[in-house]
Amino acid sequence: MSHPHPELALPAPLPGDALRVVPLGGLGEVGRNMTVVEHAGQLLVVDCGVLFPEETHPGVDLILPDFEYIADRLDDVQAIVLTHGHEDHIGAVPYLLRLKPDIPLVGSMLTLALVEAKLREHRITPYTLGVREGNRERLGVFDCEFVAVNHSIPDALAVCIRTPAGTILHTGDFKMDQLPLDRRLTDLRAFARLGEEGVDLFLTDSTNAEVPGFTTPEREIAPAIDKVFRHAERRIIVACFSSHVHRVQQVLDAAEKAGRKVSMVGRSMIRNMGIAADLGYLHVPDGILVDFKKLGDLPDDRIVLICTGSQGEPMAALSRMANRDHRIEVGPGDTVLLASSLIPGNENAVYRVINGLMRLGATVVHKGNAKVHVSGHASAGELIYVYNIVKPRNVMPVHGEWRHLVANAELARATGVPADNVVVVEDGVTVDLREGQARVSGAVPCGYVYVDGSSVGGTTETLLRDRAILRDEGFVSVIVVMDSVSGKIVAGPEITARGFAEDDEIFEDIRPKIVTALEDATRGGVADAYQLQQVIRRTVGSWVGGKIRRRPMIIPLVIEA
Amino acid sequence: MSHPHPELALPAPLPGDALRVVPLGGLGEVGRNMTVVEHAGQLLVVDCGVLFPEETHPGVDLILPDFEYIADRLDDVQAIVLTHGHEDHIGAVPYLLRLKPDIPLVGSMLTLALVEAKLREHRITPYTLGVREGNRERLGVFDCEFVAVNHSIPDALAVCIRTPAGTILHTGDFKMDQLPLDRRLTDLRAFARLGEEGVDLFLTDSTNAEVPGFTTPEREIAPAIDKVFRHAERRIIVACFSSHVHRVQQVLDAAEKAGRKVSMVGRSMIRNMGIAADLGYLHVPDGILVDFKKLGDLPDDRIVLICTGSQGEPMAALSRMANRDHRIEVGPGDTVLLASSLIPGNENAVYRVINGLMRLGATVVHKGNAKVHVSGHASAGELIYVYNIVKPRNVMPVHGEWRHLVANAELARATGVPADNVVVVEDGVTVDLREGQARVSGAVPCGYVYVDGSSVGGTTETLLRDRAILRDEGFVSVIVVMDSVSGKIVAGPEITARGFAEDDEIFEDIRPKIVTALEDATRGGVADAYQLQQVIRRTVGSWVGGKIRRRPMIIPLVIEA
Repeated sequence: MSHPHPELALPAPLPGDALRVVPLGGLGEVGRNMTVVEHAGQLLVVDCGVLFPEETHPGVDLILPDFEYIADRLDDVQAIVLTHGHEDHIGAVPYLLRLKPDIPLVGSMLTLALVEAKLREHRITPYTLGVREGNRERLGVFDCEFVAVNHSIPDALAVCIRTPAGTILHTGDFKMDQLPLDRRLTDLRAFARLGEEGVDLFLTDSTNAEVPGFTTPEREIAPAIDKVFRHAERRIIVACFSSHVHRVQQVLDAAEKAGRKVSMVGRSMIRNMGIAADLGYLHVPDGILVDFKKLGDLPDDRIVLICTGSQGEPMAALSRMANRDHRIEVGPGDTVLLASSLIPGNENAVYRVINGLMRLGATVVHKGNAKVHVSGHASAGELIYVYNIVKPRNVMPVHGEWRHLVANAELARATGVPADNVVVVEDGVTVDLREGQARVSGAVPCGYVYVDGSSVGGTTETLLRDRAILRDEGFVSVIVVMDSVSGKIVAGPEITARGFAEDDEIFEDIRPKIVTALEDATRGGVADAYQLQQVIRRTVGSWVGGKIRRRPMIIPLVIEA
Repeated sequence: MSHPHPELALPAPLPGDALRVVPLGGLGEVGRNMTVVEHAGQLLVVDCGVLFPEETHPGVDLILPDFEYIADRLDDVQAIVLTHGHEDHIGAVPYLLRLKPDIPLVGSMLTLALVEAKLREHRITPYTLGVREGNRERLGVFDCEFVAVNHSIPDALAVCIRTPAGTILHTGDFKMDQLPLDRRLTDLRAFARLGEEGVDLFLTDSTNAEVPGFTTPEREIAPAIDKVFRHAERRIIVACFSSHVHRVQQVLDAAEKAGRKVSMVGRSMIRNMGIAADLGYLHVPDGILVDFKKLGDLPDDRIVLICTGSQGEPMAALSRMANRDHRIEVGPGDTVLLASSLIPGNENAVYRVINGLMRLGATVVHKGNAKVHVSGHASAGELIYVYNIVKPRNVMPVHGEWRHLVANAELARATGVPADNVVVVEDGVTVDLREGQARVSGAVPCGYVYVDGSSVGGTTETLLRDRAILRDEGFVSVIVVMDSVSGKIVAGPEITARGFAEDDEIFEDIRPKIVTALEDATRGGVADAYQLQQVIRRTVGSWVGGKIRRRPMIIPLVIEA
C-alpha cells in the first residue's frame, strides 16, 4: 500500500501504453467525488460533486474539487460520467460547466434529470447523453459500459472503462440489497463477466468498509414505519433526504394503507419527488398528495408531512418546527419520524431538533430508538463478495476518509489481491496503470475550492484562519488620527471591539497607555504610520494578554490628516 | 409529567412543611450538574459542575451554573455534597467558593482529593468533611446518608437526604456493574432499605435511559485490551479520560502481563493517577512506571504510553501526535488504543485524529472497531430494577437532555409510579414536595454563565452572536475623518476587512460611493457623527449584500478632528 506524500512531484508525461487515474476529490474525505481518467491525451471525468463544509470552514457554503489539473485541457475532456444523482457526485457540475458548457454529461435518466434541474438554476443547458444499464458508449478513446448498481437513490450506475492500456471498473456508490424495492439489483452477473474478461484496476466505494457484515435491506425498515403509522395519534411528520426516492415510496405506501393524505414540504423535496414521479421512479397513489395550504381542511390523524431537515439544518422545515418558527405548530400527539442517517458532525444539531420537538410534546422516532434507516453503502461482507467475483488485478479504494480507504484495502488484500497491487492514495495523488501494474506516479493540485456567497475560489485558508480567530476571540480596533505636519494626535485613540468584551469601560485603562506609547515612539523619531501601528499592536496585545488572558485580533490604524 | 414553562413565576415562599428542589444545572443538558435542596430556610447543594461548550459557544472555555438563586443566601448553605469527582459534578466548585470560601465540601476520599487539587490551582483551601458509604451526617436540617454506587470513577456516592418534610434519594451518576473491578457494587440492599423506609422523591441519572438493556461490565473490555497487547509490534499508546482509574488499571494490568513499561503523559493524567495511587484506588505494579524522558532507553515493544486526548482535543497529546507536533513520533507498527466513549459533537475531531494517526502508519483501535469502552451509566434495564427496588412516591429524572429525561420518566411510569408523580423539568424549574406530592412550583434564573479567559460571567449572548457573525461573515470597518468645523472629509474612507475578502481592491468600487453618500447627507444638513455612521452602514451593507451576497458585520466610524 502506498501512502500519499507531500514531496511527490507532478507526474511525468503519460506514456502511450499507460492509463492514468487522478482523484481530484473524495479520497481522504466524504464528499466532492471526482476522478479523472487519462489515456492517449484524452480525459474522462467520473463524477463532479461537492463537499459540505464542517466547523473548520466557517462561513463556507460549499467546497468544490480543484479543477486546476484539467483547466487548460478542457478541450480534451470527452465527457463527464455521472454515476448517480447525489450532491456529492453531481453538485460541482455547474462550476465545471461554467468553464466550458459543452462538455457532454453522461448518466442515467434520473441522474440527468436531477443535474439538469440544478443547472437550470445556474442558467446552463447541458449537452447530455442518457444511458442505462447494459449500454456501451464510446466516449473518445474510452469505451464505457454501464452496470446497474443499487444505492440510496434509484438509477445508480457503475462504469466499466475499457482502453487500449487496460480496463477500469468504477463502482460509484453502491450496496447489494438483494431484495430492493424496485427489484433493480447490483448486477453481479455483469461484474462476473467483466471480471472474466479482466479488470485491471478496480475503484470501489469505501464508505462502509469498516462496518462488518451486510447492510440491511431497505424493505426491512417497513415494520418500523408501519408501527409509527399504527400508533400515531395526530399528524405524522417524516424527515428524510430529498433524494431518497425509495424511503419516500415506503412512506407513501404506509400512508395509503393508513388512509392518510401526504403533503411534501420544502423546495428540494417537492422538486426531486416531482422529477422522480414524472420519470416513473416514484409511484404516487392516486389522490394521496394534498397541497400544503389545504391541510387545514383535513383532521390531524389523516395528515402526513414529508420534509427535509433530518440533519438538523437550521433553515430547514424540521428545525423551524422545533423552534416554533414554522406554520406547522408541532404539539402533543404529533409524531416525528427521522427516517435518515445521522452524518458524523451533525449530532448536536440533530439532538437539538429532537429535544425541541419532544419539548413541544411530540413523539420522536429516529434511528437511535427504532429501525428506521439503513445505509446506502456496501458493508465489509458485501465488498468481499465483490472482490471475489471481480478478482481485479489492482485495487484503488475510493470514497472515504483515510480510515475507510485503509479498511477497504485490507478487505481487498484479504481476498487475495497482492498487497503491492492495492494502492491507497488521497486526493491529488496520481496512479498510473502500465503493464498490468498500478503505481503512484506523482501528485497534482487538489486543494479545497470554496464557494462563499457569490465568490468561487476567493476564500483562502488565511481568510478562514482569520474567521476562526474572530470566532473565538473577536477583535479590537484602535484608530488614531495624527496631524501629518506636527505628528501630534488630533483625534483618538478610538477603540472598537466586537466579540471580545461587552463593556467599553475596560478600555479606559488602555487609552492613556496607547497615547504614552505613541508619544514615546514619535519623540524617538518614529513617524511612519506602519511603525506606529506596530507600537499600538504591541501595547494593546500585551495589555489584553496580561489583563484578560485573551488573544483577540488587534487592528491598529493610524490616519494622517 | 409537567413541562417547563417560560411563563413560570418565581416560586412562592416555601411553607414550613415543604421541601424544595431547585435544579440549577444538568436538567436539559449533559453537564454542569447542580441541585439545591431547600427546607426550613436552609440550603443543601448537591454537586457543582461545569458544562463543556460546543460550537454554539465560540471561544468560551467553560459554562457554569448560574449561582444567582443562592448568591444572597450563601450563609444558609449548609454544605456542598459532591457525589463523585468528574468535572461535570465538581468543576464549578472553585467559582462558588470564590463567593464564600468556607462552605463545607462533603464527599468521598477520592472525590475530595480531586476537588482539593483543583482548588489549589485557584488558591482556595476548602473546609472538607470526608464521608464513605454507610455514613450518616447531619448537615443543618438535612440528615444525609451516603450509599455506594458504581460509576466510571471510583468512590462515587448516592445521597439520601432526610428532612422533616420528606426523604430524597439522589443517585448521582451511577450504573450497576455486578462484577466491578474494585468489587464495590451499587448498594441495592441500601436502596431497598431506604425504599422500605419510604423515598418521597427519587432523583435518578437519565444519561442512558434511552439505551435498552444493561450496560456491559467494565471487565468485559479486558479481552479487547489483551488482544491489542498481543498483536502490537511496537509502542502502544492508550488514550482515555484522566479520571478513569479502572480503565487505567486494566491497561497497567495488561502491560504487566506483557512485560511492558508504562509512562503517563499529560498534566491531568499524571496528577489524577498520582492521587488515585496514593489513596489506594489504583494498584501500580512495582517498577512498571517509567519517566517519559527515559523512554528512549527502552525498545519500542516494551513501551506503553497512557495519555489524554481521546475526544480529539486539539491541544492534547494525542492530537499533537497525529499532527506530528509531539516528541512521540508515531509511525508504522505503533498501535493507538482509544479506550473511551465518543461524546456526541466530537466525532469530526476524533476522526481527524484517527485518520492522522493511520496516515502515519499506526494501527488505531477504538470503540468503532473493537469492544474497548463501556459506559459509566445505567441503561434502561438497570433503571427499571432500581425503580422496582426503591418504589419511590415521586420521581424527578436528572442528568440529561430533554430526550433522556423523558425516556427516564417513561421507565418510572412503566414500573408503576403514577404519571402525576413523575416530574420532568429542566434547569431552573423548582419542584416542591408537600404532603407526599411533588409539584412544579415556579422557576428561578438558570442561564449560562461563561468562563472566557479570566472573565466569569462577562461574556453575554450578544457577544456570542457577534462572534458567530464574525466567524461566518467577517467584518468591514469604514473610517472617515471629518473636519469638525467645515464638515468636510479630511481623511478616509479607510476600509479594513477581516474574514471577509482577501483582496482590498474590491473596495475600490465602494470608496467613491461612500464619499458621495456622505456628501449628499452633509449637504442635506446632517452633520451628526452617529447619523453619518448610519449612512455608511447602509451604503456598505447594500453594496456587499448585492455585489457579494454576504452579510458581514459593518462597523462605521466617523471621527471629527
